[in-house]
Amino acid sequence: MTLQRLLGIDLSIIQAPMAGVQGSALTVAVSNAGGLGSLPCAMLSPEAMREELAAIRNQTRKPYNVNFFCHAPPAPDAGREAAWRAALAAYYAEFGIDASGIPAGPGRSPFDRPAADILAEFKPAVVSFHFGLPAPELLTRVKAWGAKVLSSATTVDEALWLEARGVDAIIAQGVEAGGHRGMFLSDELSTQVGTFALVPQIVRTVKVPVIAAGGIADAKGVAAALALGAAGVQIGTAYLLCPEATTSAVHRAALQSEAARHTALTNLFTGRPARGIVNRIMRELGPIGSTTPAFPLATAAIAPLRAAAERRGSGDFSPLWSGQNASGCRALPAAELTRQLSRVA
Amino acid sequence: MTLQRLLGIDLSIIQAPMAGVQGSALTVAVSNAGGLGSLPCAMLSPEAMREELAAIRNQTRKPYNVNFFCHAPPAPDAGREAAWRAALAAYYAEFGIDASGIPAGPGRSPFDRPAADILAEFKPAVVSFHFGLPAPELLTRVKAWGAKVLSSATTVDEALWLEARGVDAIIAQGVEAGGHRGMFLSDELSTQVGTFALVPQIVRTVKVPVIAAGGIADAKGVAAALALGAAGVQIGTAYLLCPEATTSAVHRAALQSEAARHTALTNLFTGRPARGIVNRIMRELGPIGSTTPAFPLATAAIAPLRAAAERRGSGDFSPLWSGQNASGCRALPAAELTRQLSRVA
Repeated sequence: MTLQRLLGIDLSIIQAPMAGVQGSALTVAVSNAGGLGSLPCAMLSPEAMREELAAIRNQTRKPYNVNFFCHAPPAPDAGREAAWRAALAAYYAEFGIDASGIPAGPGRSPFDRPAADILAEFKPAVVSFHFGLPAPELLTRVKAWGAKVLSSATTVDEALWLEARGVDAIIAQGVEAGGHRGMFLSDELSTQVGTFALVPQIVRTVKVPVIAAGGIADAKGVAAALALGAAGVQIGTAYLLCPEATTSAVHRAALQSEAARHTALTNLFTGRPARGIVNRIMRELGPIGSTTPAFPLATAAIAPLRAAAERRGSGDFSPLWSGQNASGCRALPAAELTRQLSRVA
Repeated sequence: MTLQRLLGIDLSIIQAPMAGVQGSALTVAVSNAGGLGSLPCAMLSPEAMREELAAIRNQTRKPYNVNFFCHAPPAPDAGREAAWRAALAAYYAEFGIDASGIPAGPGRSPFDRPAADILAEFKPAVVSFHFGLPAPELLTRVKAWGAKVLSSATTVDEALWLEARGVDAIIAQGVEAGGHRGMFLSDELSTQVGTFALVPQIVRTVKVPVIAAGGIADAKGVAAALALGAAGVQIGTAYLLCPEATTSAVHRAALQSEAARHTALTNLFTGRPARGIVNRIMRELGPIGSTTPAFPLATAAIAPLRAAAERRGSGDFSPLWSGQNASGCRALPAAELTRQLSRVA
């Protein structure tokens, strides 16, 4: 079965869910254009999630994808939090921030029963997960209304793990991809491989359709991914300049600058490795910190620095998520961009 | 102009030069099959180089490529060498090796005037370089007999640098590639990008033909690289099991095992980052050592460990060079493999 038929879409293009830089507007635009729009829910409160899902239902009859993280929330570690705040102390001083007033707290929620309850009201056609899969009973609930389930694999082992647990298609996330690495069986960064190496190895190993992600920026990239045996593609970075995305001004500027040529995997913003454009804090602390609190707890301490810097028009402390190929970023309506991406030369 | 016409070959496939695991036999087989065979010279004495070139001339009338490194030989640093040997001390003890008897010395030579003198006797149709380009007068000599010059770029900046200095085509070496990273404008590993991201960005930036390298393992990979805008491909890992390669038994075994799924960039074997299958020394010391002597001086101290371990049938201390996609390795004659790679589905 083709990916289009499996997911009920016209084009084999999935808009990558990007928590923090998009809401339902992008989802709707891409789905109405014939691709699969995605709504990232990791940073939404239950109320916001219901509002966004209602907005989608009101604006499209096409299939759409709702995306969740499935990490195990960590126990707060006071010692690690203190070490992390100490590493940031000079920055707090620079911005006149009283560090004692920063609330701790999670920045991202995993898929849980309340989320499944809300989702059941809307019964989206596709549900995708990052960092593995939720508990079997939650997965069963999602499948009960016929939703197709996708999840990301960053290695052949992860693809086999996902296939054994019944996913309908696997997103092969090459190391070029922007945002969070979906890795969940290992935290060793050297296990992460490029799209060109990952896609064919997963295609030859699993029976379900494989969706290529990472470094795909234009119609030629889509054609190349299909040539490697992918059934479709998932594209994120290219959508970040669309008017329907909520990408910040500093983030948009960075994506259009030469700085976008140099990205790195960093855990400074959330506690998990994610790819973003190298900025001041990544340069000064090194992109992978050893004292960074566990995902998603690292977000709290850096948030006031980000806010203060962005008020000055600076992205020095912002997660400037981007893949290694920002050359496809276009300030075009997402529907038009989706059509351009699917125009095979 | 097509790459085939530029280089005088029938197939747009270049066999990657792989110092230490191949000699003229592989070069001849690939060139006679219609691809571009390559002879790596970095580890050859002047006499050996002359013999190998004579062997090629005697066995093919087709174009072939002769490859050189262009690093600046470093001044030996006694303190760093001592620290490196101290890091290896427990291994010397394990194998009963008298570390005081290990000669220091370079393991790889850069392109220089004596090499150019020998090359001028043979006037190869193609000369390729790694780590940038040689001094302008040496480059001029090579071009004087009409040789086409290739070199590797690992970033857009390096591609622009090479084009400005007159290379005839650029090898875009994605981070998936096995062996030494060709990087020469930066030693920051996070600048290294995947083939899927690198090739299109270089294609859109330079006017000369771009050759894709890294993660390409079969005819589908070749088709995908061409879809990205590459004029041809350079493939190394897939040739390592060919009978014409001199790949060691432990290396061949590793390439055919599950271990080949996990490679990393390591500087332990030479002093420069190169991709190989993760083995005992990479695991125990970490793949990137901070005390490792500058390229190529690191090789001397590790050589007796490698030899002792290989005598026991172990690759624990061997550079098991491999790209991130060893799935294309076939124990087939190189001519047959070259034909299979060029058979676009």
